[in-house]
Amino acid sequence: MTTPDTQIHARIAASFDRQGLMDTLGARLDLVERGRVIVSAPLTDAIRQQQGVAHAGASFALGDTAAGYAALSLMPADKEVVSIEVKINLIAPAVGVRLIAEGSVVRAGRQITVVRGDVLVADESGASKTVAVLQGTMMAVPTDRTPG
Amino acid sequence: MTTPDTQIHARIAASFDRQGLMDTLGARLDLVERGRVIVSAPLTDAIRQQQGVAHAGASFALGDTAAGYAALSLMPADKEVVSIEVKINLIAPAVGVRLIAEGSVVRAGRQITVVRGDVLVADESGASKTVAVLQGTMMAVPTDRTPG
Amino acid sequence: MTTPDTQIHARIAASFDRQGLMDTLGARLDLVERGRVIVSAPLTDAIRQQQGVAHAGASFALGDTAAGYAALSLMPADKEVVSIEVKINLIAPAVGVRLIAEGSVVRAGRQITVVRGDVLVADESGASKTVAVLQGTMMAVPTDRTPG
Amino acid sequence: MTTPDTQIHARIAASFDRQGLMDTLGARLDLVERGRVIVSAPLTDAIRQQQGVAHAGASFALGDTAAGYAALSLMPADKEVVSIEVKINLIAPAVGVRLIAEGSVVRAGRQITVVRGDVLVADESGASKTVAVLQGTMMAVPTDRTPG
Repeated sequence: MTTPDTQIHARIAASFDRQGLMDTLGARLDLVERGRVIVSAPLTDAIRQQQGVAHAGASFALGDTAAGYAALSLMPADKEVVSIEVKINLIAPAVGVRLIAEGSVVRAGRQITVVRGDVLVADESGASKTVAVLQGTMMAVPTDRTPG
Repeated sequence: MTTPDTQIHARIAASFDRQGLMDTLGARLDLVERGRVIVSAPLTDAIRQQQGVAHAGASFALGDTAAGYAALSLMPADKEVVSIEVKINLIAPAVGVRLIAEGSVVRAGRQITVVRGDVLVADESGASKTVAVLQGTMMAVPTDRTPG
Repeated sequence: MTTPDTQIHARIAASFDRQGLMDTLGARLDLVERGRVIVSAPLTDAIRQQQGVAHAGASFALGDTAAGYAALSLMPADKEVVSIEVKINLIAPAVGVRLIAEGSVVRAGRQITVVRGDVLVADESGASKTVAVLQGTMMAVPTDRTPG
Repeated sequence: MTTPDTQIHARIAASFDRQGLMDTLGARLDLVERGRVIVSAPLTDAIRQQQGVAHAGASFALGDTAAGYAALSLMPADKEVVSIEVKINLIAPAVGVRLIAEGSVVRAGRQITVVRGDVLVADESGASKTVAVLQGTMMAVPTDRTPG
């Protein structure tokens, strides 16, 4: 029997698969829990900037996605999530082989959900360090009112 | 004779060409002035999210790049620019055929430069509207101390 | 005859007068237009920090207030405004005799309004310079659902 | 014998006492550890806004102060701290009798320190809840180069 938790995972996995940018970045959905989602992508030249580290935009895209889905994981099934605003602090050069973003919910409201994100890089040994932190606002919108 | 302004353009164009993520997004450097830079990219499925509009991460990546280069355009030649932090507010669904980001400098300091960004979408008729605004901090670092 | 514009001014002035913090800071409502509000306060020791310049919290309080009222000036009469999130960049030391905050609306939505703020200091000669810039999100809430 | 830890406390306490705004808000320095500082203030009409809850500016001022001192607690004695930028998300109405802000360090660098802040309100029973979260950037500046 399908449980609510597996429904949440299935819903977010299906949504993730419709994200062209996640496909472009080679990103993968690694974990879905209520209020906590992890996504990751290989750290290759395809997402680097001119100094050879991951572009802030790549860290942001993964962090925003993870945080948005963390918010969605706590919303009712007739709602979709949109990013209202997100802020990212880049705290260390993103050098390594994989970018890993974990999103979590600070406070879930009926309409407004405040989220956080942590972006880490893992090196070849598997050791990881935090390279960026995000804080933002997600909003629940009716599924039938989203654009596209 | 090479003028300082053409040197600025040449420097930023060369840096832009080394950005893997900009290549991945199909982005183009459209304008370089002192304190003002425009970059753009086609709005295709490759940068969309699950609702069919441009992913916040795509708007962020272009806006951060334009704003960072706007900061760099006012820095001495022995400095590189790194993003310290950037905040983006998504103000309208990014529906159209091209994403256009304009970065500008609010205040240039010796180390810290405060920047803004506006991200617009243009539709097939060429009409455009603002879909996101950014405010952030860029830092000048010695060219020989940047990672990579 | 009372015009809508004077109603907006009267409404915001009455709200401003109920703000204990604005009274504590000695703040004054200087200008109310649709989508644009200015408030100011004397820059005395009462709002300084340990280095003798205006505390970031004073610049924030005035900027947030001006930006919130700028948002409210475009809302229907049965709505109140609450700050969802605001970001401030401090761009110069706030040295002078008066802090002046101007709030403006970037985009007004039915529920969510994106705002900006500029905080200036004026010196004794009346010359002013920008010391902080804000970008934030305001939300319309029903008047009868606000706390207190 | 004076230990480094007591020196840190003494230094921050002396700095706190020079802050006019903290005095105006009736604020108190409650705790100083390496990388973690708590300040609080009575939640009275003097810091409320028009709806009867603590003004975002009051939560910001306490949160920014706690976070700035958390950063300073890890800096060498010849440095002072200045706020570069801070973002606050207001997550619940600040209703209660005391505002409590805890600042902590996400990453301390030589010049740039990334910080977080949590602002809580306590009610008369002593129970508390989080009303705001902050994320920001502090910068170390030479003590003799600070303004004022």
